Amino acid sequence: MSKEKASVKLWIVGSIGIDDIKTRTADRKNLLGGSVPYSTVAASFFTKTGAVGVVGSDFPAAFDRRWQAFGIDLTGVQRQQGSTFRWACEYDDNMIERTTLKTELGVFASFMPELPAAYRTAPFVLLGNIQPELQMHVLKQADGAKFVALDTMNLWIETARPALLKVIRRVNLLTVNDGEARQLTGKWNLRECAEAILKMGPSYAVIKKGEHGALLFSKDGVFIVPAYPVRKLVDPTGAGDSYAGTFMGYLARAGRVSDGILRKALVHASAVASFGVEGFSLERFQKLSTPDIQVRVDELKSMVKV
Amino acid sequence: MSKEKASVKLWIVGSIGIDDIKTRTADRKNLLGGSVPYSTVAASFFTKTGAVGVVGSDFPAAFDRRWQAFGIDLTGVQRQQGSTFRWACEYDDNMIERTTLKTELGVFASFMPELPAAYRTAPFVLLGNIQPELQMHVLKQADGAKFVALDTMNLWIETARPALLKVIRRVNLLTVNDGEARQLTGKWNLRECAEAILKMGPSYAVIKKGEHGALLFSKDGVFIVPAYPVRKLVDPTGAGDSYAGTFMGYLARAGRVSDGILRKALVHASAVASFGVEGFSLERFQKLSTPDIQVRVDELKSMVKV
Repeated sequence: MSKEKASVKLWIVGSIGIDDIKTRTADRKNLLGGSVPYSTVAASFFTKTGAVGVVGSDFPAAFDRRWQAFGIDLTGVQRQQGSTFRWACEYDDNMIERTTLKTELGVFASFMPELPAAYRTAPFVLLGNIQPELQMHVLKQADGAKFVALDTMNLWIETARPALLKVIRRVNLLTVNDGEARQLTGKWNLRECAEAILKMGPSYAVIKKGEHGALLFSKDGVFIVPAYPVRKLVDPTGAGDSYAGTFMGYLARAGRVSDGILRKALVHASAVASFGVEGFSLERFQKLSTPDIQVRVDELKSMVKV
Repeated sequence: MSKEKASVKLWIVGSIGIDDIKTRTADRKNLLGGSVPYSTVAASFFTKTGAVGVVGSDFPAAFDRRWQAFGIDLTGVQRQQGSTFRWACEYDDNMIERTTLKTELGVFASFMPELPAAYRTAPFVLLGNIQPELQMHVLKQADGAKFVALDTMNLWIETARPALLKVIRRVNLLTVNDGEARQLTGKWNLRECAEAILKMGPSYAVIKKGEHGALLFSKDGVFIVPAYPVRKLVDPTGAGDSYAGTFMGYLARAGRVSDGILRKALVHASAVASFGVEGFSLERFQKLSTPDIQVRVDELKSMVKV
């Protein structure tokens, strides 16, 4: 069976965009960006992945070709008249803080996700950072979903809390960064944040801390996974998305979820995300092989070995 | 041989102070503080430790008794007419950022460290954060020193760089926080910082990242040790000192240094430092037992296990 014909095991909904990114040493325009390209490409190293999102009539055919080269199913990507979501940012010299220079929603403003028939039976789902009402709308179409992860952002925590809590109640895993975890729960201590999140419904909480790694909380305890200390940070955009895409792809390949499998999934996520930030957009992933990933996973394991 | 009569295996020089510390929920005055009490007490769980510092005529006898109860040798603590070093700070609600409210050097301003004869043959030395010239002065008296670690701070990096580089050249291990590593080397990427530090002389660089753990760099590679995720952060003051004290105490107990022993030492440091921040001053250490430490070390190991 060819890769293209394999059935979708994981689908991911979120934004698809065209980004302009400025760093101290580079100024790049018209890059393929958004959470879905980063996360689906990262997941594609592990499982057959489907994308759900929307693009405008200005979306370059070259982006489709580049994206599809990873074997990703794009039937869930709607094509609409109008402009693709466009975003621009400039990073500080430290490559951590960034200033958003432009956010033009375009066709993303009226996005209403619909699941292709072929995705409905997929057991693994990643609800990327979009309006909670839309996350719920598309989740209701996912008859075959067995393990659902949800990402969100400060905007929805502030402006759509009731709808967000409603969809959080329905998912198995919540993945947020430390700031969002604090904002969502009103606690500062990350263990207390996680305990509050687990009371909201999910069995698992993954709290991401950027260059400081991530923490997994569940009834089985705490797992701490470091970020891989990269030598050459080119562009941190999308790191959280490729992180989430990788661990969901890893889980989908495993076909089941346990504390041990989740730990391995997160180490792989750390490895893959660390490659992603070594280039703009998907550029580093285009040159990435499965053995490369394994080398970095082994390196990460040896870096924490006592 | 009783604990009191054992010969000193490790000595530590630095500040001894009386602290006032304010947090969101507490306002504590006249606490035993400074780098030497925190670091020697932490080290005392592992080895016979000597203290080198200075106190004024106002230093309470109760502080001596409390400190000595850990079996620490205080013959290196000079007693001078005048005021003990006094420091006051207030923590932000996040318990990370703090504002210094008072710094009164007192007798610490004219401190000239002298090593008791009994310390001169001690193989392990921790040069705590004092003027680099004084670190050098006391190091020259340490005939028996086999493994020397050095801590410093932004003030000396800014104002005494040549003297600091001179003493760094003479030590085996430099321990600094991430901000200091960046300031010292002029690099942002921590791997590049560490490479620059290793070129300055030391064989080992420990870069501390507070609640995000620490990184050990050497020719053997990188070791990443997480901070223990504490539930009840009471007062982070002295965490870096008890961290450094613990790993030096652990090395002194082992009697030799290797990549494997250093990794174990750092996990113990993470464990002991995490207890320290659960109370003000030495309060949590006064109730701490060796089995307590072992429980947390095991917990930390299980938290990173893949």
